[in-house]
Amino acid sequence: MSLVIVGSVAFDTIETPDARRERIVGGSCTYSALAASFFTKPKIVAVVGEDFPPETAALMKKRGIDLKGLRIVPGGKTFFWEGRYGDDPNQRDTLRLDLNVFGDFQPTLPPSYRSPDILFLANIGPSLQEHVLSQVKRPRLVAMDTIRHYIETEPAALDRVLRKTDVYFANDEEARLMTNERNLIRAGRLLLERGPRLVVLKKGEHGALVFGKDSLFAITAHPCEGVVDPTGAGDSFAGAFLGFLDRAGDFRASSIRRAAVFGSVLASFTIEDFGIERLATLKPAEIENRFAFLKKVASI
Amino acid sequence: MSLVIVGSVAFDTIETPDARRERIVGGSCTYSALAASFFTKPKIVAVVGEDFPPETAALMKKRGIDLKGLRIVPGGKTFFWEGRYGDDPNQRDTLRLDLNVFGDFQPTLPPSYRSPDILFLANIGPSLQEHVLSQVKRPRLVAMDTIRHYIETEPAALDRVLRKTDVYFANDEEARLMTNERNLIRAGRLLLERGPRLVVLKKGEHGALVFGKDSLFAITAHPCEGVVDPTGAGDSFAGAFLGFLDRAGDFRASSIRRAAVFGSVLASFTIEDFGIERLATLKPAEIENRFAFLKKVASI
Repeated sequence: MSLVIVGSVAFDTIETPDARRERIVGGSCTYSALAASFFTKPKIVAVVGEDFPPETAALMKKRGIDLKGLRIVPGGKTFFWEGRYGDDPNQRDTLRLDLNVFGDFQPTLPPSYRSPDILFLANIGPSLQEHVLSQVKRPRLVAMDTIRHYIETEPAALDRVLRKTDVYFANDEEARLMTNERNLIRAGRLLLERGPRLVVLKKGEHGALVFGKDSLFAITAHPCEGVVDPTGAGDSFAGAFLGFLDRAGDFRASSIRRAAVFGSVLASFTIEDFGIERLATLKPAEIENRFAFLKKVASI
Repeated sequence: MSLVIVGSVAFDTIETPDARRERIVGGSCTYSALAASFFTKPKIVAVVGEDFPPETAALMKKRGIDLKGLRIVPGGKTFFWEGRYGDDPNQRDTLRLDLNVFGDFQPTLPPSYRSPDILFLANIGPSLQEHVLSQVKRPRLVAMDTIRHYIETEPAALDRVLRKTDVYFANDEEARLMTNERNLIRAGRLLLERGPRLVVLKKGEHGALVFGKDSLFAITAHPCEGVVDPTGAGDSFAGAFLGFLDRAGDFRASSIRRAAVFGSVLASFTIEDFGIERLATLKPAEIENRFAFLKKVASI
């Protein structure tokens, strides 16, 4: 099997109630590819400027990530985001956003990327997501993610992508915004009616719910006594979920369930440190231990 | 085994965004005893006025609840509470509170109540809870619940009761208020240090966490597409939890876990209708079915 991930690679400046980090590497593609790399060898499609640190590219390569689709724009500057978290790690304010090379990003897939088994349209505009979809032979599984900005500004394009999507990842705020429905069970079921076979609704510290036409899985979050930096939790969840499915080679209910637990596990590691620092040093045995722990915590 | 429950029996006037009900029967003792009655024959200690409906007493008797400790004050009026829920079913405002006969309540346990295996100090003031404790031979298990009002007004007495408590039930708001800690994992662990062997932290739609010295269980909430009336959810959880343990006859980890799932199940039924209406018609087979469903939803 193969997994292609299209998304953003960025510099983030992050402020939390306890600390601040300047221009650390982030982006939806970065987090999801690193998380997926513990299960499979993802191929990424993204754009960066010449300022992008070679150490990060080296880390990605070391983790088996295929960088043929990573375009480096000569003289360009990498996408930059600055955000601040309050006491509630689920709430954040964007303080600054410089699209830079991401503003003209027209993702073009290398020929070796055009028949993926799994395609993940991570957080980029829905029109770009459609553009990517038009370049591939229908994958066995299309997954997508989006953010408040696109839900508010490009709802029609988003709905078109949703109809071509098998797995839609949303956090609670996005699910409510998409459906205008406060109750998350109703929101999840309404989203299912708009195309996807599965809706993965992420609830931060409260875990996640995976809605299928005739199924529901509830996933417990790893008990975390202190979130250092919530950035990338959702991307890590999605990356691990899809990376696991790519390795499993099937989309049976039992695989979906395990995929979601691994999603929750990788997200729980990401938030233990700033940016990708925790993922950079993470060991497979730590992932397996945490999976076993969650199984013990949740089983009846 | 035997279970004694001390708490309030009340009239509630309840307003939700969709409806309003005047003077329906409620109270922590009522909900918890009815929920417990699906597992054991609880004995209740409470006080009501002459206005208390004989139909409710008859329903309780029919459900096997021992009413020897229910005092009816001649000429007295039953405790009355009026509250309003907003769009968020976890938020409510108290519009009116008439203590009536509850104001002079000095619970006296009938002789047949004085050696309970399990004692539940439901929502009454901590000084009254201490007064009850002083009347019983040390039970195998003491459980308690409280509310914001007593956390704010009687913290010292509350801490004394907590030190004599084995199982403390709190919702997320109460746990945060008790510990001044936003993170619920830390809050749960801090509460453990104040006496209880188990802290049951109820999170509404997000389920519950059961903290032990060396254990943690996460309980999924039944997926509910619409809460009719959240009143009594916590009391129903506690009643079913303790009723199940009373029937199980032991406090092993596996029993605690099942007790918490049954707690979640009974709470999920309570909120499907106003007041005790759903509990009044509930069938054991419905409880078993929902337990099996939650097991399927949560198992990895």
